[in-house]
Amino acid sequence: MKIFRMPLRIEWGKCDAAGITFYPNYFTWFDAATWRMFEEAGISPYELHAKGVNIPIADAHARFARPGLLGDHVVVESHVAEWRDRFFLVRHRMLRDEEPLLEGEELRAWVIAHPEDPRRFKTIAIPAEVIAALS
Amino acid sequence: MKIFRMPLRIEWGKCDAAGITFYPNYFTWFDAATWRMFEEAGISPYELHAKGVNIPIADAHARFARPGLLGDHVVVESHVAEWRDRFFLVRHRMLRDEEPLLEGEELRAWVIAHPEDPRRFKTIAIPAEVIAALS
Amino acid sequence: MKIFRMPLRIEWGKCDAAGITFYPNYFTWFDAATWRMFEEAGISPYELHAKGVNIPIADAHARFARPGLLGDHVVVESHVAEWRDRFFLVRHRMLRDEEPLLEGEELRAWVIAHPEDPRRFKTIAIPAEVIAALS
Amino acid sequence: MKIFRMPLRIEWGKCDAAGITFYPNYFTWFDAATWRMFEEAGISPYELHAKGVNIPIADAHARFARPGLLGDHVVVESHVAEWRDRFFLVRHRMLRDEEPLLEGEELRAWVIAHPEDPRRFKTIAIPAEVIAALS
Repeated sequence: MKIFRMPLRIEWGKCDAAGITFYPNYFTWFDAATWRMFEEAGISPYELHAKGVNIPIADAHARFARPGLLGDHVVVESHVAEWRDRFFLVRHRMLRDEEPLLEGEELRAWVIAHPEDPRRFKTIAIPAEVIAALS
Repeated sequence: MKIFRMPLRIEWGKCDAAGITFYPNYFTWFDAATWRMFEEAGISPYELHAKGVNIPIADAHARFARPGLLGDHVVVESHVAEWRDRFFLVRHRMLRDEEPLLEGEELRAWVIAHPEDPRRFKTIAIPAEVIAALS
Repeated sequence: MKIFRMPLRIEWGKCDAAGITFYPNYFTWFDAATWRMFEEAGISPYELHAKGVNIPIADAHARFARPGLLGDHVVVESHVAEWRDRFFLVRHRMLRDEEPLLEGEELRAWVIAHPEDPRRFKTIAIPAEVIAALS
Repeated sequence: MKIFRMPLRIEWGKCDAAGITFYPNYFTWFDAATWRMFEEAGISPYELHAKGVNIPIADAHARFARPGLLGDHVVVESHVAEWRDRFFLVRHRMLRDEEPLLEGEELRAWVIAHPEDPRRFKTIAIPAEVIAALS
């Protein structure tokens, strides 16, 4: 199981009037960490998108232990925790030094455009080489 | 149990390159819906914040059934589903016409600044009048 | 000259640790106001996009007189101040009650996909009916 | 004149349905670049904020030459172009390889809380050591 690490700074524009991270930003970082994890594993999600494959969210969850504060240097640690046929589960946690701030999961689908309905996606089986690259 | 409704349009700036809502925005709408719910119930979260009371997130979860598309007119329906001593659970769902797009929950704490550690909050009991106003 | 008005609330998620609007949000509101102005004039920018016409930014400018504060009820007033052959200038101002908070301009192009280079756009003449609808 | 450089990737969550950067994000990057520039110069804007000094925007302007595309690796180059008594002008440009995508300016004030009106700021003279560190 490979763990991918994305360091970041909690910048001014990510904090609210209480001086802590406005919480939807954590999911923006989860999203960025997932993209980056794929890319570091040699599976470019940018190229996948260009070829019509997307990885939309099916379920997103986060449990918050401590607030991320203005200026904090943190790291998002991410890995694929589970492969299902047409879905995969990414587990993330965010640490400040060794202290965990939050942890969460993204369940994502492997999809192409739906052949009959442009308003929907069609899930397809995740290619074996993707699973191999990220496992 | 009061249900609060927040209509909104899925605007250009909320969609990604696949033409669907970038998913962290759903949590931004959950947050806005919670604030608005409090205000419509006569408990201004703006005034609470000015007095030092905040309602930070403890747990956020969403399950996505259908993508919200560029230009969709949707409604977020929200209610407090559960009161615990120092926490409360808000349940949201987003509908396009009568079709559910997603549903989720926010568990939030009722807090003041921590007397000894400015980097933390201190949870306190939720006032009875708040519970009454939103139940 | 038609003036379009978009009321909004300066919500929790739009403010920074100083309790004022994080300034890039003003441009997000300019963008939303422009889209809404087109739609109210009967020219749906959502339909234009679906047909391959976009209105990307060429120049954006804002002058800030007073900060927009957490919880403020404000209005964005917008109008097309100038039509050029393939560009148009939208002027916005944001008011709190009658007090101006900021004013600014967006210069936007009228474009289709570039026939030879997918990384670029091609500007085209703005249709007369668009100009008529918004003038 | 010191030039500061902030490399970044144009991520999925920053692009719109046309596959290009949603333009308010450029101003978010300008803001981040300005904060980072101060910090690299040894003047922590996080510490300034903790002491009650802020650098709110007075004027923001950007001229867009080419769209920033999904996945682009870009660099924001920033420097203080002008010091006025209580204001300073930061000039930014964003490059993809050597190709300029956009350039712009932020005019910012040097302020403390207004002694009589919590809804306003009070501009004060920029300390000489700040000017020295960034010049």
